Amino acid sequence: MHILIIGAAGMIGRKLAAQLLGHGRLGQAGIERLTLADIVAPTVPQRFNGKADCMAVDLAHPDTATQLVAGRPDVIFHLAAIVSGEAEADFEKGYAINLDGTRHLLEAIRLAHAQDAYRPRLVFTSSIAAFGAPFPEAIDDQFLTAPLTSYGTQKAVGELLLSDYTRKGFLDGIGIRLPTICIRPGKPNLAASGFFSNILREPLAGQDAILPVSPDVRHWFASPRAAVGFLLHAGAMDLTALGARRSLNMPGLSATVAEEIEALKRVAGEQAARRIHAQPDETIMRIVAGWPRNFDPQRALALGFRADASFDEIIRNHIDDELGGTIGA
Amino acid sequence: MHILIIGAAGMIGRKLAAQLLGHGRLGQAGIERLTLADIVAPTVPQRFNGKADCMAVDLAHPDTATQLVAGRPDVIFHLAAIVSGEAEADFEKGYAINLDGTRHLLEAIRLAHAQDAYRPRLVFTSSIAAFGAPFPEAIDDQFLTAPLTSYGTQKAVGELLLSDYTRKGFLDGIGIRLPTICIRPGKPNLAASGFFSNILREPLAGQDAILPVSPDVRHWFASPRAAVGFLLHAGAMDLTALGARRSLNMPGLSATVAEEIEALKRVAGEQAARRIHAQPDETIMRIVAGWPRNFDPQRALALGFRADASFDEIIRNHIDDELGGTIGA
Repeated sequence: MHILIIGAAGMIGRKLAAQLLGHGRLGQAGIERLTLADIVAPTVPQRFNGKADCMAVDLAHPDTATQLVAGRPDVIFHLAAIVSGEAEADFEKGYAINLDGTRHLLEAIRLAHAQDAYRPRLVFTSSIAAFGAPFPEAIDDQFLTAPLTSYGTQKAVGELLLSDYTRKGFLDGIGIRLPTICIRPGKPNLAASGFFSNILREPLAGQDAILPVSPDVRHWFASPRAAVGFLLHAGAMDLTALGARRSLNMPGLSATVAEEIEALKRVAGEQAARRIHAQPDETIMRIVAGWPRNFDPQRALALGFRADASFDEIIRNHIDDELGGTIGA
Repeated sequence: MHILIIGAAGMIGRKLAAQLLGHGRLGQAGIERLTLADIVAPTVPQRFNGKADCMAVDLAHPDTATQLVAGRPDVIFHLAAIVSGEAEADFEKGYAINLDGTRHLLEAIRLAHAQDAYRPRLVFTSSIAAFGAPFPEAIDDQFLTAPLTSYGTQKAVGELLLSDYTRKGFLDGIGIRLPTICIRPGKPNLAASGFFSNILREPLAGQDAILPVSPDVRHWFASPRAAVGFLLHAGAMDLTALGARRSLNMPGLSATVAEEIEALKRVAGEQAARRIHAQPDETIMRIVAGWPRNFDPQRALALGFRADASFDEIIRNHIDDELGGTIGA
């Protein structure tokens, strides 16, 4: 089996590649070849006996998709995206990558299908940003995608195209709407959602963190481990049960900031929680008020997708995966 | 006020132009200039004291939208589309007009906005084809757009872009999801939905008609008069009440084929109904089974959109508008 990851240099892409190489298989199929593509050349994360290619490519260029599809990968993970904040600030760039880039990929597959009946599995990472307020108490599988950002719009368009190209038989597509990833490893960033991770990651590393919203703010989360699990399941499962609606709300954890902090106290002690300093930010509060709080992801659960069991588990897994098992002082 | 109609040579476009010219105004504003564009040059339907331009243009060509926007129309009615059957048969053509054509228009407006703060009203005709089975008993305003055709996909994408370009302030957009138009004037065509009109129009003209489905098939209808009324209202109303969700399910009539036939009998007599000949067609039955049956269009009703009162009224209006008041023998 030949697997292509587009967006392989990103946080989730790197973890996905590591998992695939660690297992050496996806579902029942052995991996003979892996192609890792991103705007900067990804690196092969560990020893791999098969053929591995790392490519620096620009998906905004139509030829890129043709080039990526030329090797006829059996499974394509399409994770590449301009993130929400940047897509909002740079309208043209967001559309060029998130919409046109995705369409170039779909078109390259369609043209390859016309040549030799090529029909790959395509796993498209969408986002809960495809939804916009006002929301019901829990968003169900029939709720409309009415995004409030250009990023969410581009993801929702990608979902529609994915379903249509699948329906026409050009590919076998599945879109997975990822919850907000928490705990996101690395440095604090300026994303409006960053604080959900910062208030756990920084104290666990012995650093202070700022909480810009009220502790009763509720949101929808999945860990990096859970997100990679969703991708692996989406890449291997039988998709016929999906029917015509190819995009799914992934399961996750609905939790308040206060519940995050309680979990932090249980796992890392009261002193860790004292690293969190309330510093209300009206702008962030206003943005967060438009975000989903809870989902009822029945389809995904019935199809075998599994979320984290608790925030305690999310924190413990972060300590294992990112901190070598040790909490900072 | 300068009004542009794109798709002005089509059935609804011609009726809309005739209404605008008849009134000489849209809402409170007098019409000084009218631009009618289509793939074939439209004709000005009657005497008009202002400036009228008729243009034959291809919206698939990016320069076309720039040219149409150069005259800075205050209100743009975007009705141009490759119809459902053709968009399904010719994948590339459907996407070129229905998706790329719409995007070219949005982009031309955005670039004009960047030049001189141009910000027109854009009325986009979407369709109930943006929805796909399985449906609830009545489709409400929060139901997802999960189309089952390329045409429906292209309309749903257009809606998403319309909302995003409106949110960014480039234009003031409204999308209206038209019910199936009935009674569609003209010759019987090969559209799968054609029979809903044929079984009324042909008997009213003294001709036989074929009914390919069971009389208990239920669907969602609006007359040409109602559709033009929706467009005029959408062109003139205050759109601030729409909020971020710029596309609306239009009101209509939910009726079975049997109810259509009962109305025909009441208006035109039993002998008209005897012109209808049952001739079941499995293909059409299967297609129609995936179509919406009923809506609960609360938002549109609250915003002042009004549907036909009954099928009797639809039939009487057809006789007045298309048959000079006389039923055929």
